[in-house]
Amino acid sequence: MGEPRNILFVMADQLRFDFLGCTGHPWMRTPTIDALAARGVRFANAFVQGAVCGPSRMSFYTGRYVLSHGASYNNYPLRPDEWTLGDYLNPLGLRTALAGKTHMKADEAAIRRLGLDPAEGPGRFLAECGFEPWDRDDGLQKLAPFVPDTQYEAWLRGRGYEGVNLWHEVANSVRRGDGGDPSGWLMRNARFPTVAAEEDSETAYMTRRAMDFIDDAGERPWCLHLSYIKPHWPYVAPDPYHRKYGREHVLPGNRSEGEGETHPVVAAFRDHPESIEFRRDECRDTVIPTYMGLIEQIDDHLGRLIDFLDDRGRLADTVIVVTSDHGDYLGDHGLGEKELHFEEALRIPLIVVDPSPAAEGSRGRVIEAMAEAIDLIPTLIELVGGAPAWHRLEGRSLLPFIRGDGAAGWRDAVFAEHDYSLRHARPALGLEPQEAKSWMVRTERWKFVRHPRFRPELYDLENDPSEQIDLGADPGHEDVRSDMQHRLLDWMQARLNRVGITDEAIRQSTGKAWERGYLFGRW
Amino acid sequence: MGEPRNILFVMADQLRFDFLGCTGHPWMRTPTIDALAARGVRFANAFVQGAVCGPSRMSFYTGRYVLSHGASYNNYPLRPDEWTLGDYLNPLGLRTALAGKTHMKADEAAIRRLGLDPAEGPGRFLAECGFEPWDRDDGLQKLAPFVPDTQYEAWLRGRGYEGVNLWHEVANSVRRGDGGDPSGWLMRNARFPTVAAEEDSETAYMTRRAMDFIDDAGERPWCLHLSYIKPHWPYVAPDPYHRKYGREHVLPGNRSEGEGETHPVVAAFRDHPESIEFRRDECRDTVIPTYMGLIEQIDDHLGRLIDFLDDRGRLADTVIVVTSDHGDYLGDHGLGEKELHFEEALRIPLIVVDPSPAAEGSRGRVIEAMAEAIDLIPTLIELVGGAPAWHRLEGRSLLPFIRGDGAAGWRDAVFAEHDYSLRHARPALGLEPQEAKSWMVRTERWKFVRHPRFRPELYDLENDPSEQIDLGADPGHEDVRSDMQHRLLDWMQARLNRVGITDEAIRQSTGKAWERGYLFGRW
Repeated sequence: MGEPRNILFVMADQLRFDFLGCTGHPWMRTPTIDALAARGVRFANAFVQGAVCGPSRMSFYTGRYVLSHGASYNNYPLRPDEWTLGDYLNPLGLRTALAGKTHMKADEAAIRRLGLDPAEGPGRFLAECGFEPWDRDDGLQKLAPFVPDTQYEAWLRGRGYEGVNLWHEVANSVRRGDGGDPSGWLMRNARFPTVAAEEDSETAYMTRRAMDFIDDAGERPWCLHLSYIKPHWPYVAPDPYHRKYGREHVLPGNRSEGEGETHPVVAAFRDHPESIEFRRDECRDTVIPTYMGLIEQIDDHLGRLIDFLDDRGRLADTVIVVTSDHGDYLGDHGLGEKELHFEEALRIPLIVVDPSPAAEGSRGRVIEAMAEAIDLIPTLIELVGGAPAWHRLEGRSLLPFIRGDGAAGWRDAVFAEHDYSLRHARPALGLEPQEAKSWMVRTERWKFVRHPRFRPELYDLENDPSEQIDLGADPGHEDVRSDMQHRLLDWMQARLNRVGITDEAIRQSTGKAWERGYLFGRW
Repeated sequence: MGEPRNILFVMADQLRFDFLGCTGHPWMRTPTIDALAARGVRFANAFVQGAVCGPSRMSFYTGRYVLSHGASYNNYPLRPDEWTLGDYLNPLGLRTALAGKTHMKADEAAIRRLGLDPAEGPGRFLAECGFEPWDRDDGLQKLAPFVPDTQYEAWLRGRGYEGVNLWHEVANSVRRGDGGDPSGWLMRNARFPTVAAEEDSETAYMTRRAMDFIDDAGERPWCLHLSYIKPHWPYVAPDPYHRKYGREHVLPGNRSEGEGETHPVVAAFRDHPESIEFRRDECRDTVIPTYMGLIEQIDDHLGRLIDFLDDRGRLADTVIVVTSDHGDYLGDHGLGEKELHFEEALRIPLIVVDPSPAAEGSRGRVIEAMAEAIDLIPTLIELVGGAPAWHRLEGRSLLPFIRGDGAAGWRDAVFAEHDYSLRHARPALGLEPQEAKSWMVRTERWKFVRHPRFRPELYDLENDPSEQIDLGADPGHEDVRSDMQHRLLDWMQARLNRVGITDEAIRQSTGKAWERGYLFGRW
C-alpha cells in the first residue's frame, strides 16, 4: 500500500444501505464490497441530503446541502457557479472524469447568459457537471442535452443489436418467449432476463469503460466517478442475474399502513402508482429478487475492476469509495421508489478504502458516527493532500475516522430536504410548487420533518426504529419538537451562502477598517 | 402624464427614513422630495434586507434576500449567476446604467473560472453589477477593481484642483483656516466646509452626470440608477450646506444605555469607536447638522434634475424612485453608524412616482403596509410592462398600492439579516466568522432577532416603539418568541433557491412522468 494519488468513486443508483452482505443482509452475496469494507472503513450511519437522484447527487458533487446548491429535484438545473468535484480535484492534478450517471441538468439559459457555449470550453465544463465526460450516460432517455446519443447505445449497435431505442429495446426489455409486452418498465417482467446479454448490460459495459479510462490515464493521477445506473429501475437483469435470487430471499417488509394517523404527505405518496403496486406481495416477490441480482452483478463487476487495478499496480495508490445516491422503499412504509425521509430512502452504504499506511489502524472498522453525503468531497480532497474550501463545502472531512481514532465534537444530527413539486402528490395536496417541500433533522434518537403547510413528523428511533409511529402531533413530545425546530434554525443559519470570500480572508481583515484607511467614527 | 418607459432610480446612502420633511422631521427642508411624495406614493414602513451598504444594495439590485444572494457584507463578492436589475430591464428595451455608487464587489475568481474577462463582454457585465457603468463611483477609495480612477477625480483635476487623492484631499477635506488636520474623516471637522466648492461636490457632479446620461440616451428608453454617495460619512458638506443647520435643529436622541440588560451583540457594537463618539452630545451636535445639510443639498440637486426632466419632456414618461440603502444611528441606542436591526438603521424612505394615468388615484398617498427593498425590482418591471421572474425574485410588486387600492393578503412581516464577521465585535464576542450573524423578523407589533450563539432580542413595537426594552429573555413572552421562530422557519423554507426552473414549467410537468415515457411503478 502507499499514498493515494487516484480516486475511484463508485456510486450505485438506488442501492439501499441494508442490501449488502457487510451491512447485514442474510442472503445478499456481495463478496467484493464486503472485502472493500474489510480493507477500508464502513460508515454504518451514512445519509444522503435528499432521497432523489438529482438533488442527492448534486450534494455529493458540490459538497453542499440541497438548499445551498438549489437543484432540488431531478432535472432542476444546477447553477453554473456551484463548484463541483472537478473544480476541487483538477487543480490538485487529478484528471476528474465520469463513466456513467450524474443526473445533472445543466442550466443552459444561465450558461448562455454568461456568453458561453455549453458545447465547448468553460461552458462545457459547467454543462458536464465539472467532469470530463469520458462516458456520460444517465440511463433512461438521453437527458443530457449536449450528448445526442450515448456511447453505450452506439456500442450496442456495434454489437449487432437492432432497433430504434436500444437502451429501451435491448438493455431494458426482456426475453419473455410468450409474445407479451417485453418492456422492462413493467415490474411483472422483472422475473425475465434482459434482451441484452450479461456482457452487453449497462453494468458490464460501464465497468469496461472504467478500465479503458484507467488505461488511458496511464501514469497521470485521476479521479474516476464510476456511476452505475443499477439497481435503479427498470428492475430487469441480464441472465443469470435475473434468477440468482427468489421469493424465499425476500425479507418481510417494514409495513406501517393503518398504524395510527398517517401524515398527509406520506399518505399522498402512498397513493402514487408505484406505492400501490409495491404494497402487493406479488410485486415485492417479483421485483426484489431481481433488485438483489442487479446488486450482485455490480459486485461481480467491481471484483473484476479491483483485479484490474491490482494488475495495473494501482491498488496501492488509489482511494476507493463505494456508495449510493439513496435507497428504495420496495414496499416498506407502504411506499415504492424513494423520496420522503424514511431510513430506507435516506440511508446509504458508504465505504472508503484508503491505501495509505496511515490508515492501517482503521482497516475493517465500522463507524457508528453519522456521516453525510456532503462529507465525501472534503474527505477526498484531504486524502489526496489538498485543503478543502471550507467557505463553500458544508460537509466535514471523514479523515479522522480513516486515519485516526475518530473526531471529538462530531456532529450530532444530519439533515435532508425533499422537494416534491414535480410529483402528483403536490396538486393532490393542493400545494403550489414553492410549498411542496420538507426539511428533516435526524439525531441518534429522533427524526423530525418540518412541512411548511402541514404538521411535522416525529419518530423515536430508539423505541421505534422502523418509524411506524408518527409522534408529530403527540402532545407529550412538544419539547422534542421545539428542540428540533431550534436545530433546524441553527442549521439554516449556518448555511454557507457567502461563497465568494474565505473565512481566513475575513479573519485577516476583521476590525481593520482604520488600517485600511476608512477612518469612520474618529472624532 | 403618460405611460412610463424610463426609470430614474435615485438612492441616497445612509439616509434615515425620518430625516425628510415629508416623513415628519420638523426642521428638514426637502421640498423636492416632499413634492415627489405628493405626486407619487410614499411607503411609510419600508425596510431594507440588511442595514449595511453592500448587502442591502445587493438585495435592491437582485430582488432577493441577503441569504439568497450571499453578498452579506461590504466587499463580499456577488455570485456571477445572481441576476441583477440589468438582467431584467435590458431585455425590456431599457438601457440600464449607473451614475454613482453600488458598493458591489465583483467575484473576480468566479468570473475567471468561467473563462471570462472582467474587463469586457459578459465578464464586464457581471463585474459592473449588470449596469452600464456610465459613471461608477463608490466614493472612498476606488473599490471597483476594474476602474483604475474615478471619472469624478479626473474631472476635479480638470477643474484645477491639485493633489494625490483628490477624493480625499478635495471632496472630503475641509477648509479650517487654522492649520489643523483638515481630514473629513474626523467628525469634529463636520462644522467646516469642504475644500471642494459646492458645484464641484460629489452630489453636484453626479447630478450633472445624470443629466448627461439622459441627453445621451435621447429617445431610447432607459433606467438610470442615480446613486448618491451622501449623506454617508465622511460627514462634510460644501459651503453653504455645512452651515444650513445648527445644534438647535438636532432632535433629542433615542438613548437606551443602561436601561435593562443589554444584549451582548448590541453591547459589543456600543464598544465600537463610532458608537463611543456618537454617545457624546458634542459629536451629535457637530455631525447631525452637517448630515442634514447634505440631505438638503441632495434635495436641491434633485430639484434641478426634475426641472431638467421637465425641460426634456421626460417627466411624463419616467418613473421616479427615491430611496436609501439604510439609515444611520447618529447616537441613537448608544450607537453610531448602522448595522444591527433597530428601526433607525433598517427603515428607509421609499417614494415611487408613476406618471401613468392609472396612478392618478394614488397621488400623494401614504402607504402603511410594510414594504421591503426587494419589492422594488418586480415593481419596476411591472411599471414598464414586463413580467417578473417569480422563481428568482423574492419580493412582491408594489403596483397594487400605486395603481390600485392596495393588496389583499399582503405580507404581515418583513425580514433582515446582519453579518458582522468583519467587525471588531466578532472577535470581541469570541465568535468565528460563520457565527457572527443574526436574522430579524418584524411584524407590526413585534421585532425578533435570532442570534445563533446568544439569546434572541425581542421588542414590543406597540408599547415600546423606540425599542428601549429588550424582552428577548423575558419569561412572559415565550409564546411570542416561539411564534417568531416559526415565522423565521417559514421564511427560510420559502427562499427561492431553485433559480434554474420556473414554477410554471414545474406546473406543466407535474405528475407527467408516464406521459414523458418514464413508466416507473407500472406492474
